[in-house]
Amino acid sequence: MIEIVGREALLRKRKTAEFSDEEVATVRKIITRVKEEGDQALVAFTKQFDGVKLDSLHVEEAELAEAVQAVEPKLMTALRHAAERIRRFHEKQLTASWIMEEADGTILGQRVHPLERVGVYVPGGRAVYPSTVLMNVIPAVVAGVKEVVMVTPPQPDGSIPAATLAAATVAGVNRVVKVGGAQAVAALAYGTASVPKVDKIVGPGNRFVALAKQLVFGEVDIDSVAGPSEIVVIADETADPVFVAADLLSQAEHGEDSSAILITTSADLAANVQTEVVRQCKRLVRGRIAQTALERYGAITVVGDLQEAAELSNQLAPEHLELMVADPWGLLGRIRHAGAVFLGPYSTEPLGDYVAGPNHVLPTAGTARFFSPLGVDHFLKKSSLLCYGKEALLRDGPQAMALAEAEGLGAHAAAIRVRLEREGAKGR
Amino acid sequence: MIEIVGREALLRKRKTAEFSDEEVATVRKIITRVKEEGDQALVAFTKQFDGVKLDSLHVEEAELAEAVQAVEPKLMTALRHAAERIRRFHEKQLTASWIMEEADGTILGQRVHPLERVGVYVPGGRAVYPSTVLMNVIPAVVAGVKEVVMVTPPQPDGSIPAATLAAATVAGVNRVVKVGGAQAVAALAYGTASVPKVDKIVGPGNRFVALAKQLVFGEVDIDSVAGPSEIVVIADETADPVFVAADLLSQAEHGEDSSAILITTSADLAANVQTEVVRQCKRLVRGRIAQTALERYGAITVVGDLQEAAELSNQLAPEHLELMVADPWGLLGRIRHAGAVFLGPYSTEPLGDYVAGPNHVLPTAGTARFFSPLGVDHFLKKSSLLCYGKEALLRDGPQAMALAEAEGLGAHAAAIRVRLEREGAKGR
Repeated sequence: MIEIVGREALLRKRKTAEFSDEEVATVRKIITRVKEEGDQALVAFTKQFDGVKLDSLHVEEAELAEAVQAVEPKLMTALRHAAERIRRFHEKQLTASWIMEEADGTILGQRVHPLERVGVYVPGGRAVYPSTVLMNVIPAVVAGVKEVVMVTPPQPDGSIPAATLAAATVAGVNRVVKVGGAQAVAALAYGTASVPKVDKIVGPGNRFVALAKQLVFGEVDIDSVAGPSEIVVIADETADPVFVAADLLSQAEHGEDSSAILITTSADLAANVQTEVVRQCKRLVRGRIAQTALERYGAITVVGDLQEAAELSNQLAPEHLELMVADPWGLLGRIRHAGAVFLGPYSTEPLGDYVAGPNHVLPTAGTARFFSPLGVDHFLKKSSLLCYGKEALLRDGPQAMALAEAEGLGAHAAAIRVRLEREGAKGR
Repeated sequence: MIEIVGREALLRKRKTAEFSDEEVATVRKIITRVKEEGDQALVAFTKQFDGVKLDSLHVEEAELAEAVQAVEPKLMTALRHAAERIRRFHEKQLTASWIMEEADGTILGQRVHPLERVGVYVPGGRAVYPSTVLMNVIPAVVAGVKEVVMVTPPQPDGSIPAATLAAATVAGVNRVVKVGGAQAVAALAYGTASVPKVDKIVGPGNRFVALAKQLVFGEVDIDSVAGPSEIVVIADETADPVFVAADLLSQAEHGEDSSAILITTSADLAANVQTEVVRQCKRLVRGRIAQTALERYGAITVVGDLQEAAELSNQLAPEHLELMVADPWGLLGRIRHAGAVFLGPYSTEPLGDYVAGPNHVLPTAGTARFFSPLGVDHFLKKSSLLCYGKEALLRDGPQAMALAEAEGLGAHAAAIRVRLEREGAKGR
């Protein structure tokens, strides 16, 4: 089910998230129609894509309250426990405005403000993802965002799963709208009667959602373009094959395009994990999905030492990286690119998906080279402060004029000259 | 030259940075060809768009050294002075990795690492922008980026202006390549023989450059999509009409699509600025450009009080905002959206363009609602750390399993169960 391959074959397993001209054209059409027709287009697309005719896209307060009652207490407890830990971790990410003062009285600084309104996309249809709600909404709330608008596609009966709505309540969502797909992204970007225009759109989705986010980038801000889930496990001979197999399967079950890779220094472990994966997969409800994913994008490779393992992992820049080795902290220094690093045998990736506290929205498809986990700073924006006094003007003005003149921007130089002349006149 | 208009007319002056299907198709073709043909495509497009046939796109060490000699000492001094102030401001933006430890030994944290290689786009052709080089490169160098690749279109004679190359040397660029336009962005995103693939692309450019950056976003990271320059001046009766007019003109001269707006509580100031703009514009080398910009996107509006002025400015979310009022710090609290705020009569915007220290790469076209000035954090990426101990697993494992089961992800639950079972077995 999961092959043992060489380094080259393993690197070929990498996917790219490219879109065809057809996909681009399709999504641009959807966006244009939502811009022009607003809610009418949303209702039409929801009928077309979700197979349900909605009179109102808005989720009422009553529906939210009912959901909290409908969800079993055990799940509500877990949601609140997770929300509390996620909040505590993200509060550590808050940054403050600052200023620097210079001897001549010049003040320079950086203001930090929360975004005013953000949109959170939550996948739906038959799936239910309360954890996605917590992970995308809580950082925005911690940042101080005034209004969080959640969009999620309705189920065939037109409802939203109770667990999703309960999570929205726990996380602090201000408004829930029953709409999904590229049309939901377009609505958040441009605004309709039911969906207010937002400053930023976050949250995972299918290819069309990801492409729509990319196409509205600039009109609004977006988080990184999310791809299929991935895990790389680096393990030595001390690792437990039962744990390693279980963790590979936990990512593989996400979807048939998920990727799960083991890089190990132990040929015995490689063989044992291979066997364990087959044995454990049989017992899984989503075993067939996991099997397909492992056959397509799964792999085990045996390397000479842990340094080689780290280098190979850096080339993959995985979303999730587990270090199941005797000395994980000793290996950490060699890891340059990974969305989240899980150290040691107890730090199984699903703990990070739900309750550990760090965000589970992580860069995929090698983008951990340059993207970061979703965090509070994604919901903050900065602006610069400049307050010059006369002395500083006299010091820096001529330097700025020299640069302005080199760039052929005479009016830039003039704006400084009129002030220097005014001071010179006063001086006389 | 610059109209006095009402609030509504002023808001209609806002531009949007939308691209046509034709523009998208054109730029996608350029990107595809660069991906397929590499340098060959770059040479061909450079001949087509820049009108120069280049044998080598690479700028040699010797050319860089010559440039430093060729530039007049006064300009070199200004470049070094500016670079030093820009470096000092941006060093304040550096952030450190951190961890939080819990009572049971759990360690959670956030690592902060510089990007490894970035590309900086510097506009060229006939224009010369050494300040763009400093402002885009220095934050990357301060962040610790190992390799900064600068791309800029060659002049008709195939050379790059000495001032641009001198600035590259002062700022710490590692490699300069003679290529511009969408093809340069494509080369940085996918890599060619002359242009190494980068992790992030920053720097301003024309519509095609901006669109290309948007289209490669995801393959690499990009800074915000830059539009034409803008300034809003909020002034009361204490403001000097000569200063206000000079500052409006300094932005208007950037290009015919630049925007310069005065919001004032004083009808007298409005009239005096109108007159001053005409008087000063006559003396400007780029007066005709400034005139066209002011006629198309310039405006003066008189409001009832400063609170109204601030609200109107917040709706515009300008790139640059000057507060030329008796108490600028008293007004600051009402300003929610602006790329950079300049306080008081001496803080003319061109000081910020060149020497003040804060970055002059700022969000345009209303994107100050959600984008930030270019800064060190644009060249840093984060990743999460999770290290669970046995106690923490026993505490959080069941909660995570409850959420996994609610999401129908049995393998996620199983990855935790195998560990709880192993501990249970040990317990017996």
